[in-house]
Amino acid sequence: MLGHLARRLGRMQQLSAGLKALRLQQLQTSLETIRRISTLSLWPFSSQPRDFSQPNSSWSPEMHKAYDHYNALCDTDTEKRGPWRKLPSYNRSIKYATGGIHLSKLIQAKARLFTRNVKEQGATFEYMVFVNKEEKRCVCVFQAGHLLEGAPGHVHGGAIATMIDTVTGTLAGFLSGPIMTANLNIDYRSPMPLGSVVLIHSALDRIERRKTYITCKVTSTDESKLYTEATALFVSISVGHLFGSRN
Amino acid sequence: MLGHLARRLGRMQQLSAGLKALRLQQLQTSLETIRRISTLSLWPFSSQPRDFSQPNSSWSPEMHKAYDHYNALCDTDTEKRGPWRKLPSYNRSIKYATGGIHLSKLIQAKARLFTRNVKEQGATFEYMVFVNKEEKRCVCVFQAGHLLEGAPGHVHGGAIATMIDTVTGTLAGFLSGPIMTANLNIDYRSPMPLGSVVLIHSALDRIERRKTYITCKVTSTDESKLYTEATALFVSISVGHLFGSRN
Repeated sequence: MLGHLARRLGRMQQLSAGLKALRLQQLQTSLETIRRISTLSLWPFSSQPRDFSQPNSSWSPEMHKAYDHYNALCDTDTEKRGPWRKLPSYNRSIKYATGGIHLSKLIQAKARLFTRNVKEQGATFEYMVFVNKEEKRCVCVFQAGHLLEGAPGHVHGGAIATMIDTVTGTLAGFLSGPIMTANLNIDYRSPMPLGSVVLIHSALDRIERRKTYITCKVTSTDESKLYTEATALFVSISVGHLFGSRN
Repeated sequence: MLGHLARRLGRMQQLSAGLKALRLQQLQTSLETIRRISTLSLWPFSSQPRDFSQPNSSWSPEMHKAYDHYNALCDTDTEKRGPWRKLPSYNRSIKYATGGIHLSKLIQAKARLFTRNVKEQGATFEYMVFVNKEEKRCVCVFQAGHLLEGAPGHVHGGAIATMIDTVTGTLAGFLSGPIMTANLNIDYRSPMPLGSVVLIHSALDRIERRKTYITCKVTSTDESKLYTEATALFVSISVGHLFGSRN
């Protein structure tokens, strides 16, 4: 819910505009202060946030294989770019916005994106999302870490719901701009052992005015086994909606 | 999904029986070894797991107030015990079972319950569940920490789904024994700011053979504001189901 607003590259412009529209004077004042400090070269933070979608040593061979498969579909030659692209992933959605790296230190500075809140690599959610703009669908490769336990040795239903919300919301946001989750309807078909690598396939069902309907399937990497099926509904919002305005 | 099996006190006996039924010879052999070691008084682990449902310094005054309200309804005099009781909460569901503390070190020893996987108090899920056996309902008091972010400053839809799965599954397990989540259908009505303290009300709708239907509402502590509504379906299973048997 709301989990997807501005989380993805495609929403950068909308969020940037929305944040400007907020005109929170206090924020702007603080931002000015920070700009002044940063021009003094005393700014203690890196200006480049870590992209969590990159491979790391916790990835299993199966995870690497699935990543390599989809990554090969992403043509890096911008002149003749293919329909697939990999989205970056940060530990705060606000970092996607212009100036967001600084803003993210002002709005609840200790807050972190739920799916990227544990530092230990491989312990919780390892994933990256590939979007196919032409086909209006995306695929997430997800490796479930040992801190996601529900029943002994198996992934918690809430952790699976979290990834479904994340991936369907990513696609909805990519296609429709700023959105919030209105409904998730999830059928759990088969228990998922901890350590599993799965594919989360999301596709656009339809867009009706402010409503974006997405379908979702969670399968094994060879797509022979179905773990979960879901539908998701997202409603378009203005960024001001989050901060109390009704527009 | 599956996230609830044996997570609560009421399921202790069923899980214990189920684990015996597994007759995993390797496990039993290892358990014997451990028992032998532990009789030598060299066992390095505490035999008392931490109960995460107890108050801690991260709790806000609103959290304490809601806790005190429901805790006062729990009569600790076992002779004339009231219908309300507080359930304990551990960081591995298997610890509920007889011998579970030892078993939990053998089955994926590093695994931790998804909702109790971050050590920093107050950072993620602070909650406890009160069950009313007579009325077949329960109430969870939940304080949402800063590491549960979705949209800037707000709780991730997946974190809310996780708590709904946890609380509805707790009630279903309490009433029906070992179960797994089959469906969650969640309507998000209003964005929830980080730091919010909310009540998660769950009630039995009906039981039909192996299916237990639960309804759920997430509200402010004064119940004036509705954040989320949901229904959940759980299917009764044998513990063997988790480990590959079809019964």
